[in-house]
Amino acid sequence: MTQKLVVALPKGRILNEAMPLLRRAGIEPEPAFDDPASRLLRFTTNIPGLEIVRVRSFDVATFVAFGAAQMGIAGNDVLMEFQYPEIYAPLDLGIGRCHMAVAEPAALRAEDDPGRWSHIRVATKYPGITRRHFAARGVQAECIHLNGAMELAPSLGLCRRIVDLVSSGETLRANGLVEVERIAEVTSRLIVNRAAAKTRPAHLAGWIDRFQGALDAAAIA
Amino acid sequence: MTQKLVVALPKGRILNEAMPLLRRAGIEPEPAFDDPASRLLRFTTNIPGLEIVRVRSFDVATFVAFGAAQMGIAGNDVLMEFQYPEIYAPLDLGIGRCHMAVAEPAALRAEDDPGRWSHIRVATKYPGITRRHFAARGVQAECIHLNGAMELAPSLGLCRRIVDLVSSGETLRANGLVEVERIAEVTSRLIVNRAAAKTRPAHLAGWIDRFQGALDAAAIA
Repeated sequence: MTQKLVVALPKGRILNEAMPLLRRAGIEPEPAFDDPASRLLRFTTNIPGLEIVRVRSFDVATFVAFGAAQMGIAGNDVLMEFQYPEIYAPLDLGIGRCHMAVAEPAALRAEDDPGRWSHIRVATKYPGITRRHFAARGVQAECIHLNGAMELAPSLGLCRRIVDLVSSGETLRANGLVEVERIAEVTSRLIVNRAAAKTRPAHLAGWIDRFQGALDAAAIA
Repeated sequence: MTQKLVVALPKGRILNEAMPLLRRAGIEPEPAFDDPASRLLRFTTNIPGLEIVRVRSFDVATFVAFGAAQMGIAGNDVLMEFQYPEIYAPLDLGIGRCHMAVAEPAALRAEDDPGRWSHIRVATKYPGITRRHFAARGVQAECIHLNGAMELAPSLGLCRRIVDLVSSGETLRANGLVEVERIAEVTSRLIVNRAAAKTRPAHLAGWIDRFQGALDAAAIA
């Protein structure tokens, strides 16, 4: 019997790191998947009943949380932001490695003491994480939600601080910003819808094992 | 005296329609602006003190609302979603023309009567507009916020209805969806930060006039 399984993958940078793992786990998408001109969002694979949807990184978590996809790949930045109880993340795939940090203009940093903040304004794509991070030490963070280009905010006078993902640090440097504190290490995880894992335990556990095997093989290679 | 003026432009499709208008209004960005490999987000122009930032369409409104940019170009979909009181939109630029609609699977449409809805679940990038649209006639809309790929939601069982922008209708058709009702006509507007318009009325009014002139010239051409 063929059981339908929808796997949600994030568009963009992470996808290039995720595909070798998927292929090692035995999943080969239809040729249109690699066609840069294709506007398709949903793809069949070599596995009967297994389909891939390619969506924005934040939407991967939403599709899996609501059971529209049973499995997916999402960064723990996204998982921390949403905190969906319907998602569990059995495997750290070790890809998409970066970290989340608070940054501010280098000129400000010298005279600034984060220990004395009581109310700050922050531009970020992660208002949930930001509020909780600061609330934990009694600092009220007023978040201005941006979808991108956070690093422009301080020089344009929107706010002094941002919370953003940092990889090489090049974007911060290019915008005259320095890290003030690190909030979390970020990698991508294999995520699974809890209800699906309960109703089809053998099927989902089988796929988690195949991804674990793909990770082990990658570590040896 | 040179007065600083930051103009926020949306990345993507609308930008190609907006640039001829900007150039007719006398604004020519530095060459890096047209370099597809450039990762810059902020650009000088031929006008001293006038800079362009290139950000996501939703962020254009946020930058202008908070006064980080004094002027921008944004669709009324974005303006309706946020309803920022700090923004006013003096000119309809007539570009980025599309409409916002409720859609559902064609198979469902035949037997569905929107007049009898009382509670519906909707996938959308516009939860604010969607909730208000339905609340106005006593329908409670539970919104699942997605950043894209709304058209996948019905076939994956996330929900039956979506609220999305529709241009040619090709995406809806390709996903077996049909329009149920139209929520709003959408075009892009020149938007201005109210505080900036109050403190520098002549400067901002001068630029609005230049855009009006560019529109008139485009209409004649």
